[in-house]
Amino acid sequence: MAAGTLNFDGVDYPDGKASDPRTLGWMHGAPPPTDKRIGFRGDQFANFPEQRWSLSHARELMPTVNVWRGPLGPSSLGEPPHAHDEAAIDEFAFADLQGRERRWLESLFDTYTDGIVVLHRGRRVYERYLGVLRPERPHCCFSMTKSYAATLAAMLVHDGTLDERQRVAHYLPEMRGTAYEDATLREVMDMQIGVAYSELYSDAKADVWNYSRAGGFRHRPPGYDGPDNFYEYLRTLRKDGEHGQAFAYKTPNTEVLCWVMKRVTGVGLAEMLSQRFWSPLGCEQDGYLGVDPIGVPMGGGGLNACLRDLARFGEMMRCDGAWHGHQRVPAAVVSDIRGGSDPAKFATAGYKLLPGYSYRSMWWVSHNELGAFEARGIHGQRLYIAPQAEMVVARFASHPIAGSAANDPITLPAFLALGRMLQGA
Amino acid sequence: MAAGTLNFDGVDYPDGKASDPRTLGWMHGAPPPTDKRIGFRGDQFANFPEQRWSLSHARELMPTVNVWRGPLGPSSLGEPPHAHDEAAIDEFAFADLQGRERRWLESLFDTYTDGIVVLHRGRRVYERYLGVLRPERPHCCFSMTKSYAATLAAMLVHDGTLDERQRVAHYLPEMRGTAYEDATLREVMDMQIGVAYSELYSDAKADVWNYSRAGGFRHRPPGYDGPDNFYEYLRTLRKDGEHGQAFAYKTPNTEVLCWVMKRVTGVGLAEMLSQRFWSPLGCEQDGYLGVDPIGVPMGGGGLNACLRDLARFGEMMRCDGAWHGHQRVPAAVVSDIRGGSDPAKFATAGYKLLPGYSYRSMWWVSHNELGAFEARGIHGQRLYIAPQAEMVVARFASHPIAGSAANDPITLPAFLALGRMLQGA
Repeated sequence: MAAGTLNFDGVDYPDGKASDPRTLGWMHGAPPPTDKRIGFRGDQFANFPEQRWSLSHARELMPTVNVWRGPLGPSSLGEPPHAHDEAAIDEFAFADLQGRERRWLESLFDTYTDGIVVLHRGRRVYERYLGVLRPERPHCCFSMTKSYAATLAAMLVHDGTLDERQRVAHYLPEMRGTAYEDATLREVMDMQIGVAYSELYSDAKADVWNYSRAGGFRHRPPGYDGPDNFYEYLRTLRKDGEHGQAFAYKTPNTEVLCWVMKRVTGVGLAEMLSQRFWSPLGCEQDGYLGVDPIGVPMGGGGLNACLRDLARFGEMMRCDGAWHGHQRVPAAVVSDIRGGSDPAKFATAGYKLLPGYSYRSMWWVSHNELGAFEARGIHGQRLYIAPQAEMVVARFASHPIAGSAANDPITLPAFLALGRMLQGA
Repeated sequence: MAAGTLNFDGVDYPDGKASDPRTLGWMHGAPPPTDKRIGFRGDQFANFPEQRWSLSHARELMPTVNVWRGPLGPSSLGEPPHAHDEAAIDEFAFADLQGRERRWLESLFDTYTDGIVVLHRGRRVYERYLGVLRPERPHCCFSMTKSYAATLAAMLVHDGTLDERQRVAHYLPEMRGTAYEDATLREVMDMQIGVAYSELYSDAKADVWNYSRAGGFRHRPPGYDGPDNFYEYLRTLRKDGEHGQAFAYKTPNTEVLCWVMKRVTGVGLAEMLSQRFWSPLGCEQDGYLGVDPIGVPMGGGGLNACLRDLARFGEMMRCDGAWHGHQRVPAAVVSDIRGGSDPAKFATAGYKLLPGYSYRSMWWVSHNELGAFEARGIHGQRLYIAPQAEMVVARFASHPIAGSAANDPITLPAFLALGRMLQGA
């Protein structure tokens, strides 16, 4: 392996420092030199190392809808981290899953971290921005979007607006004849759906790319004649296996769930996120969601948020749904999520790095000693909530490999070890 | 003319009430019915009455870059308007340019107003939102963008960063051989450029549409092989006539000016607007700019802002560049703009409704009894600053006709009469 590179699946990639988009000069100049431009066509924005820039600039590449932070000023996250806390964490040592000792700060580069903040007892003890991310700049959340969306759904179930035992076709008659016709909302929320759909990001022919193209999130080649929006795509999905038997991670589940919420409430995802989270939590910056050609946001992965606002959401979930003394999510909803679902139904999915996990309302529940539960997104997005350590870690990254399995060998032990240290602090 | 319609150029259009996008149900439903969708393809978003929705939702249709409002909370615009002030203005009567008596409130519908705020001595005396505009929702500014951009340029001239006597090719060597090679920055700023380029919005073959397509702001038909971005387009422009002789309104002038600013300062338009205006004025909401396929914002028309932030900018210009006791634009810059340029060079352009006007640093200067100067944008966008009346009017609209000549017969006498009334108040 050459210096300044990291090897994944037999391929050398420039490491976190060597791929810093400022060093590489992406999109600098007027105009940027031809070989330093990042555009939408041909999905160039999604290449590595271009994505080290584009994951912090998604709205400059595609249509988006605003998630308004509301009329009030930002809520306090307390004073900035103390220098001695940050220095201690920078030097903090832990063993990765291969047993190699690593230092925290160096590990940020090896996980292509764009920004990371650690809250302990609600106070920022660590906050770093690398590459082109800035505190006020939203970053792609990818599938962490799902945890936001399904928390909203769980709130609507809790207040009786939705019935989790009802089947999808009850709410969306046009989904009759699809895989979802006889799936209950709860099966959708826990991703126990038997549907023919592949989400193997390393496979260029996986369904997830057709799904993205339908929504306009990937370049459509000339002559494209596939579905023209997310809803059209969802109606093409057919059943494969039975519902309720096993966890199977499929992004369209979230899209179906968001469609149900919109149909029943009349309130779109962007507005609901603003009303339920962004405004009540006093978020610092507006967020946004990528939208398809008919204005439907991608509930399965389209959210962009700034790092501190992701941390606010995590801290609220850590505090049983309360934020600064106000209950924003019913405690019963948070408790249900933290309790997880049946680990046996998760185990069959074969996530070797996640032994003992379960998946509940689109959160990944570790059932570990810290009671940790996570929102996870491709390329290293992570919100790690560890109630027993009174710790929340929010991280944005632009890892060359989509799947979390590429960064989990560092990420999981790092966060667990830091939680243990803070637990004793 | 049928009831509920207005006739322009021999064509009946639904009037302001009949074309309210809420009544028409645009983009409502999950999904919206096929005939209620507004998309980018085929330029459907730009049709009337669709644009009554799309001018308040531009970012949902195309890539944009954020104009950050900065780290501080919004600056005060004082208390909301008093009900008695608003009622008085609603009933306020004036004669339009055809001599017909109109009431202010009714005139808002006849000018397809989406939102309007009137400041008197810095205090809001009137504020109305119609259709789908909301206080926190940015609206297309169209060519009011030019006044923002050229005010920045005038500031850079004032501080010596730019030399208004220099020719464009001095700053942009790649513009040699184009119309702009021997044009001075001042000629560009005052739009006294001899360039073959037509901006007749009612002509579907006018150059302005090619320009928009180059930037990706209009749908490109299959097989499009024209310029791929704004800069490429600008390099195709050839000289026609002499510079410095007469005012001729051409949007690419602003684009060239913004290109010079970016080349010299290294700071993009979005960031400069944030640093110089949005943050120091304490704007309430982020603004944004539409960007082309290589990330270049459209300085000639791409800005979207919320109404109160447009009003803040106007109030600062009314107060000789000062905002809440801080000088944000040098008083000499504002004074130079308000002084206008040579009305004789403006007169030859043939604006029959704007007798005595001149054009300076991309502001329209009336030289009227109120000392009014204006930022103007197609479809009814207007920032009318009347120093002698201590009045600022900020208005967003979605008029079916692009050119201001369609709404000036109401707008100009309405604002002048209101200014006279407030002057005596």
